[in-house]
Amino acid sequence: MRSIILGALALSIASACQAQDAVETTVTEAEIASALAPDWRDVAPENLILIETSYGDVVVELNPDFAPNHADQFRQLVRDDVYNGTRFYRVIDTFVAQGGLQDDAVIEQFPTLTNENDRPLSDAKFIPLGNADLFAPIVGHIDGFGVGRSESLQKEWLLHCPGALAMARDTDPDSGSTEFYIVLDAQRYLDRNLTIFGRVIDGMQYVQKLKRGIRAIESGVIQAPEIGDEILSMTVAADMDEVIRPSYQVQAMPTQAFEDAKTAKRVRDDPFFYRKPPEVLDICGFETPVRKTPE
Amino acid sequence: MRSIILGALALSIASACQAQDAVETTVTEAEIASALAPDWRDVAPENLILIETSYGDVVVELNPDFAPNHADQFRQLVRDDVYNGTRFYRVIDTFVAQGGLQDDAVIEQFPTLTNENDRPLSDAKFIPLGNADLFAPIVGHIDGFGVGRSESLQKEWLLHCPGALAMARDTDPDSGSTEFYIVLDAQRYLDRNLTIFGRVIDGMQYVQKLKRGIRAIESGVIQAPEIGDEILSMTVAADMDEVIRPSYQVQAMPTQAFEDAKTAKRVRDDPFFYRKPPEVLDICGFETPVRKTPE
Repeated sequence: MRSIILGALALSIASACQAQDAVETTVTEAEIASALAPDWRDVAPENLILIETSYGDVVVELNPDFAPNHADQFRQLVRDDVYNGTRFYRVIDTFVAQGGLQDDAVIEQFPTLTNENDRPLSDAKFIPLGNADLFAPIVGHIDGFGVGRSESLQKEWLLHCPGALAMARDTDPDSGSTEFYIVLDAQRYLDRNLTIFGRVIDGMQYVQKLKRGIRAIESGVIQAPEIGDEILSMTVAADMDEVIRPSYQVQAMPTQAFEDAKTAKRVRDDPFFYRKPPEVLDICGFETPVRKTPE
Repeated sequence: MRSIILGALALSIASACQAQDAVETTVTEAEIASALAPDWRDVAPENLILIETSYGDVVVELNPDFAPNHADQFRQLVRDDVYNGTRFYRVIDTFVAQGGLQDDAVIEQFPTLTNENDRPLSDAKFIPLGNADLFAPIVGHIDGFGVGRSESLQKEWLLHCPGALAMARDTDPDSGSTEFYIVLDAQRYLDRNLTIFGRVIDGMQYVQKLKRGIRAIESGVIQAPEIGDEILSMTVAADMDEVIRPSYQVQAMPTQAFEDAKTAKRVRDDPFFYRKPPEVLDICGFETPVRKTPE
């Protein structure tokens, strides 16, 4: 078996040694927070949504901090069993998988939402990625989510990276209600135009298995006699018996563990890389580490 | 049905009107070439490879201009039926789908290849993308393939964008032979470290359906009793009867059609975009248009 990349990188202990040699050290506020924070953050069961498909469960973390009304409405729709038995009816390869009620007459029964596609710069713990970005003046992470920022706009917003969960809409920016989509490949030009309210933290491989439509035909809506894959059920984890409820953790930030995870992807020390790649990360190519909560 | 993006954009005729008003016009060499070139280039049947899976056919265009020895060896392996019945045995979501012979003892029977992961700057028709890139000083396209360029290195190379077909190897840069991988999400840090010798031009959605391994276990190699999806057959289109042989065309370049395709993705005139996105393209997010040859 031929590997294209070797296994886990041995983390260097050089930085610790250098600290002992340093004439003076300054300890930043972030370093103190990092030293005190646990390395993992529990995903709140109220924000953990399971989308059951025939391929496996797609697990989403909602983001009520950025999009409180969208997260609330989606959670309530899930609790009302609105999505059970509906389909991923518009799936375009390398673009998005869209699901929901599909029928305009049914959709119109639900209240439309004022967009929440950006917010004023907050005092949330924003962790800069550390290099440039093609689409936003500054990018980084808040609570594991990819975030763009602009000082001139005094705004911050969630990014259309793979796995982002967002609300579809008509031309009116405030017309979203029930139809959601999951981003397959990065679609950053949609940032600040549509409202992201969560992201897939597990099971993205099952989203990738969904039956595709043809982009040029009815904007990718799967056409009869073909039929999109079914959403067998959606469940808020908080509503499940604790014995069977799945539990996830996202790497906490700021933490040294998160900085180390980025460095391992940015600095390729393994001899496999006989040419050192540029030491940059694409915000959409770096996935915040997620794990099932250890027993 | 709620669209997240409206259908085909009406192409503006403003540029034609402006040309009539212009005091003087300069006609560049590229514009002459564009005016003379047909809008589509036929994919040579010798470079068209069909990878049959249970989900559907994955269609590859080889690139013997950038990687002549890799393309030749791969084509010969296909003709020798070496891959028929083998499996995609190492598939990591958002990373790569690797296939081939898997067994080191078998792999060693085939000659290793000197890497062809870059080449001197050529006089091939390089079409600049027109904006910055995170990983390369200059990016653009040659014959539909994403290309990076460096004036200081005097080199150009193919990019690890989704769909790139490349040869796996051991730590020795010249150790690739039979094990290939298809890039799922962009992996640009692999550029100039491994040899890309083709790209998927159709059926990427079937690659996305392949059974995944677990990255943390044996570097993503699918573990028994699980088994990777089978390569039912591989065929060089040139070897098929012309009556049943599939035929593809890639948008030609330089052409106005190709420039228009990029502009349509870069400048979002549709009123759906109530906030205009930055007018940039990610080289790995823009797919060169491909079509089946019209009857």
